[in-house]
Amino acid sequence: MAHENIPYKIYLNESEMPEAWYNLRADMKNKPAPLLNPATHEKMKAEELEQVFCRELVEQELNDTDAFIEIPKEIRDFYKMYRPSPLVRAYCLEKKLQTPAKIYYKFEGNNTSGSHKLNSAIAQAYYAKKQGLKGVTTETGAGQWGTALSMACSYFELDCKVFMVKCSYEQKPFRREVMRTYGASVTPSPSMETNVGRRINELHPGTTGSLGCAISEAVEVAVGTPGYRYVLGSVLNQVLLHQSVIGLEAKAACDKYGIKPDMIIGCAGGGSNLGGLIAPFMGEKLRGERDYEFIAVEPASCPSLTRGVYAYDFCDTGMVCPLAKMYTLGSDFIPSANHAGGLRYHGMSSILSQLYDDGFMKARSVAQTDVFEAAEQFARVEGILPAPESSHAIRVAIDEALKCKQTGEEKTILFGLTGTGYFDLVAYEKFHNGEMSDYIPTDEELAKFRANLPKIDQK
Amino acid sequence: MAHENIPYKIYLNESEMPEAWYNLRADMKNKPAPLLNPATHEKMKAEELEQVFCRELVEQELNDTDAFIEIPKEIRDFYKMYRPSPLVRAYCLEKKLQTPAKIYYKFEGNNTSGSHKLNSAIAQAYYAKKQGLKGVTTETGAGQWGTALSMACSYFELDCKVFMVKCSYEQKPFRREVMRTYGASVTPSPSMETNVGRRINELHPGTTGSLGCAISEAVEVAVGTPGYRYVLGSVLNQVLLHQSVIGLEAKAACDKYGIKPDMIIGCAGGGSNLGGLIAPFMGEKLRGERDYEFIAVEPASCPSLTRGVYAYDFCDTGMVCPLAKMYTLGSDFIPSANHAGGLRYHGMSSILSQLYDDGFMKARSVAQTDVFEAAEQFARVEGILPAPESSHAIRVAIDEALKCKQTGEEKTILFGLTGTGYFDLVAYEKFHNGEMSDYIPTDEELAKFRANLPKIDQK
Repeated sequence: MAHENIPYKIYLNESEMPEAWYNLRADMKNKPAPLLNPATHEKMKAEELEQVFCRELVEQELNDTDAFIEIPKEIRDFYKMYRPSPLVRAYCLEKKLQTPAKIYYKFEGNNTSGSHKLNSAIAQAYYAKKQGLKGVTTETGAGQWGTALSMACSYFELDCKVFMVKCSYEQKPFRREVMRTYGASVTPSPSMETNVGRRINELHPGTTGSLGCAISEAVEVAVGTPGYRYVLGSVLNQVLLHQSVIGLEAKAACDKYGIKPDMIIGCAGGGSNLGGLIAPFMGEKLRGERDYEFIAVEPASCPSLTRGVYAYDFCDTGMVCPLAKMYTLGSDFIPSANHAGGLRYHGMSSILSQLYDDGFMKARSVAQTDVFEAAEQFARVEGILPAPESSHAIRVAIDEALKCKQTGEEKTILFGLTGTGYFDLVAYEKFHNGEMSDYIPTDEELAKFRANLPKIDQK
Repeated sequence: MAHENIPYKIYLNESEMPEAWYNLRADMKNKPAPLLNPATHEKMKAEELEQVFCRELVEQELNDTDAFIEIPKEIRDFYKMYRPSPLVRAYCLEKKLQTPAKIYYKFEGNNTSGSHKLNSAIAQAYYAKKQGLKGVTTETGAGQWGTALSMACSYFELDCKVFMVKCSYEQKPFRREVMRTYGASVTPSPSMETNVGRRINELHPGTTGSLGCAISEAVEVAVGTPGYRYVLGSVLNQVLLHQSVIGLEAKAACDKYGIKPDMIIGCAGGGSNLGGLIAPFMGEKLRGERDYEFIAVEPASCPSLTRGVYAYDFCDTGMVCPLAKMYTLGSDFIPSANHAGGLRYHGMSSILSQLYDDGFMKARSVAQTDVFEAAEQFARVEGILPAPESSHAIRVAIDEALKCKQTGEEKTILFGLTGTGYFDLVAYEKFHNGEMSDYIPTDEELAKFRANLPKIDQK
């Protein structure tokens, strides 16, 4: 085993940073299903997508053949402000668990957005600027994506309008001030500023909102305002493409030190972090070069992979976006208000859905208090206060390391630590006070939401 | 000039991290004045100090002859979890300012305490554990020190009791949850749990507290509880010793890349960050090897160097601590409640006071809104949301870079970016809303506090 003399933190040199993103779709035999027009159920054309998204991002969205897409220099320069991110050997956690497993995590929290979201935000802002746009709109759940986008827009001097899921807006008031520091405007969603928002507020008075609803609002404003486009922080192929920088760096660091992960674990909401982290490793698996075990971890309160169906569905509550084929709980699904922060999306990236359906990846769901227990245990030995989202991956990494303790296996575990929990202290407080709920939707509830899937030929 | 091909972030390798702290006092001809017993006005003996502080820390406190003191392996291992910290080239800030100056900053915020405070916290916790103590008490202002100490105590499984200045406790409720995550107990100060706290609450009903008062409370509890000692996050010689790790790393990184700072800038409250950052550079200056310009930056609302007197004073409001000779505003001084966060201490480290008095270092005071303007400007181009404390240094670094723009000088500026502002969003919000006050104490007010200096032979 080559795990001796590994530093606590592996930082690549700037010269070792990737110069191209890796497009996993190029190596997939079963490509992710195309986006469909919600009215005609025909494959979305580039021209149609360009009403909503920036031109070059549409190209990236549709490109499933080129394995590598160059990262423009302007984006690489911005990456240098906070990347490469460290690959950390969790020596202290290993010691605490007394496990023979070797645990590594790729830490994406060392930037002000507090997460990996900045990797795609800066790319999307760059292409918007390049196209000569005035600004962009978006939604945000836990607020990480909105913060990331506001940072990126500030850098390129673009307007930034953020619809923030109402329960997060209320639980995380300080996120708003960070976004304001970067010059963004932030509106709690559902709002009364859009047709979709007014309709949802009328149908569901007092709703705490959902990502699906915030997306609809942001799209409505983008499409209706000249010089604006909509950008999205997860789910889309382009986002997973940008996030491949995580996996490429992780793999370069592993290769440099002779580390060979047996198991790669990531939390999964829309799939941006997991898809990015596993991309180059999954590429090896798809090409038959090397095997890995991949585990997507989702909250038991929003279990799209483990309890959803694989079908075409609406990406948003307002049904204004294209249809995507994905593991989904139904576009009306809204997780319990007691569920903390992110990983609230009803569906899963089409790329990951296809890989999961083809058996290349496993999924596991975990309960909220178990996640916070893992978070606290991790914080106390590794120093970093993890985001609740990231802590889903920590939970499973710890579980797997404890299994190794029982079996004596010296597995190498790599997980994605997507971000920090500095803006999640309300949730930590609930956990400390024993007020955290572990509500899990019943089969009957899930069936109800599933009944609203679009009526098209669901192959 | 050797400023070409410098990466955005310089990370030393683990093997390049310092193995010993640098004790600046060894190179000072005029040593900092000794601590005095507040009752007898005699030089404090080690035995007396050991009632309050851990044994080995007392040794370090009194040692003004050994230039290097080894960093125990346990502490170096902990340092590896979040150090070396990056030396960042502020390319984007330089570009924004269009200055010929080269700007570098040593960023200490990439750990959960959000600041440099962890460097000394882990050392103090280690020596407490080594001595077989049960726990430690302390005070915290902005909460960074308390968070750092709770992390350190959690790592070594020590009890941690924190008295938090009341205005910060109220402005930064989430800090409490972070400390709780690490198992600490947090009490707003002045409390009703100590004699000192009860007396101050009676004399000044509704007081928002001060560091000096919180110190008194923490010392009272430490001295009155078997198996406990008091630890302090700034001011003391031992703290500056531990913080020399900042300067040693910064200097190693500069030397590695041929960077020669002309000017080194740091914010100064009690002096821990500034003293640590400048230590090895100041050593060169004291030994006549190289000249640097050092600038301490303090808030205009708490101007101990620029408007204080150099005299023996009480370190705490309750007058239970030893007397220290320092630049001071008087131990009763409490900055305006409108003053954001840290840098609230009435006095300044004896080491820095002596160096300032001997003309080796300059000082400048800056107004609060000017500081937040610099903070926002910095955040927007460099990505990092800075702590208000750190932003004092940013303000002066920007001012100096703009002077270079006028004169055409290509000065190399190094400043200390001590931490992040994730828990300072209430202050940022006030700034955004135009509700920030720039209150500066009048000469009459300062004279009133100065009248309470201890009546001893003030040479």
